[in-house]
Amino acid sequence: MGLTLKQAQAAVQAAHEKALEMGVKMNIAVVDAGANLVALIRMDDAWLGSLDIAIKKAKTARYFDMPTGAIGGLSQPGGPLFGIEHSNGGLITFPGGIPLKGDGGLMMGGIGVSGSTVEDDHAVAEAGANAVGPR
Amino acid sequence: MGLTLKQAQAAVQAAHEKALEMGVKMNIAVVDAGANLVALIRMDDAWLGSLDIAIKKAKTARYFDMPTGAIGGLSQPGGPLFGIEHSNGGLITFPGGIPLKGDGGLMMGGIGVSGSTVEDDHAVAEAGANAVGPR
Amino acid sequence: MGLTLKQAQAAVQAAHEKALEMGVKMNIAVVDAGANLVALIRMDDAWLGSLDIAIKKAKTARYFDMPTGAIGGLSQPGGPLFGIEHSNGGLITFPGGIPLKGDGGLMMGGIGVSGSTVEDDHAVAEAGANAVGPR
Amino acid sequence: MGLTLKQAQAAVQAAHEKALEMGVKMNIAVVDAGANLVALIRMDDAWLGSLDIAIKKAKTARYFDMPTGAIGGLSQPGGPLFGIEHSNGGLITFPGGIPLKGDGGLMMGGIGVSGSTVEDDHAVAEAGANAVGPR
Repeated sequence: MGLTLKQAQAAVQAAHEKALEMGVKMNIAVVDAGANLVALIRMDDAWLGSLDIAIKKAKTARYFDMPTGAIGGLSQPGGPLFGIEHSNGGLITFPGGIPLKGDGGLMMGGIGVSGSTVEDDHAVAEAGANAVGPR
Repeated sequence: MGLTLKQAQAAVQAAHEKALEMGVKMNIAVVDAGANLVALIRMDDAWLGSLDIAIKKAKTARYFDMPTGAIGGLSQPGGPLFGIEHSNGGLITFPGGIPLKGDGGLMMGGIGVSGSTVEDDHAVAEAGANAVGPR
Repeated sequence: MGLTLKQAQAAVQAAHEKALEMGVKMNIAVVDAGANLVALIRMDDAWLGSLDIAIKKAKTARYFDMPTGAIGGLSQPGGPLFGIEHSNGGLITFPGGIPLKGDGGLMMGGIGVSGSTVEDDHAVAEAGANAVGPR
Repeated sequence: MGLTLKQAQAAVQAAHEKALEMGVKMNIAVVDAGANLVALIRMDDAWLGSLDIAIKKAKTARYFDMPTGAIGGLSQPGGPLFGIEHSNGGLITFPGGIPLKGDGGLMMGGIGVSGSTVEDDHAVAEAGANAVGPR
């Protein structure tokens, strides 16, 4: 019972609205529990290079079931996971990716946002993650 | 003057509605004039392997500004473009990808659809392409 | 509710036993519904190049929820899906990959086998697919 | 005289049992002297992103015939091997990968484990490495 398109689109729309409200231009990607894309949008004039980053953030958040920024804290030089971003075809380990959880904490996928500061990216991703409603 | 997100979403929504009406489960992708993704959806239970095919069809249609099936006619063994699918990180040259044109025939991007027969894929892509309205 | 390791190992073991019984040396791979590896073995002296083929067969079977050989019938020169193997990082479209189905036909993953003739590969994959028991 | 499947499966099983005993969810991969996969399992609910990391740890350990963590000590900024992880399609240089040695120190392959802290990963890999018995 994976993430439905309806749920993924609700997450994308909520993130989009948050971005419009904040006045930032974002790429927004949602993956399911298998880390495969379900929905994606690129806002007008959003950084082109942030498209791949948004996808990688969504996948990274689901790959390790934690916000991408938490991994970044562990992957610094001298840290226990230094160099982890060389796995899985490339990870992004700074904030902006959040796992999507269902009832009972069931892992359903991830959302990744990129296009502004990492604080903004995270805030927009959070708005999306909070909007994943019932199937 | 690139394709707007609003236009891309109109194309995706029209294609989605056509797919629902036909009772098929599709992956639908839209790229802009730079052949970069603008919007994408995967319908519930659509073939997982068709996600990448939909993206490649959208890009292929824009790369050469013609429907993907037209390229397939030229890339058969003995044909003038035999093997063209080895370029650009992989092309898909059977039907389901259509270029998106604006006023005066201006090339604006491409739409790619995958998840059923190639005839169905093309019909759904056409519904999407026809729905790209004014900016 | 994905494929469990216990189920994947039951499939691998049944395929392994079938291969021993047939006197063939196989690579055997099992993926879950997200097309991600769950279990894999390479028998002693099995063709080294068949390892990647087994993995790609398992993924291809799940990507399109049909035996890999069925896709091969459609992807010949002049066929409707000619060139499909250029998608998804490379597909294998000859026999030896079979989708794994659960109760009610629910798609749970795929098994891929490579190391002998395609008829042998398919027979061994079938033995594995039939052994996916209860969770 | 390569690693046999029987030996690889003994290593995987011992590592699996250690992981169950420790209450951690691991991906476990074993490669032979040619750094090619021989056996692999992903435990239920193990981090999806750790699958590729386990494979890369097993390969890295065999590529350089030393525990992956030892390489990590040399690949920090300012260190003699800074950036080594960009080779070989991506290395993982934190603990969890251990070379597999046979009689007389003969290099037979590597085991890689990922899914918990690097200390846990290493402990589980060690249990696997110690279980490679006679052919």
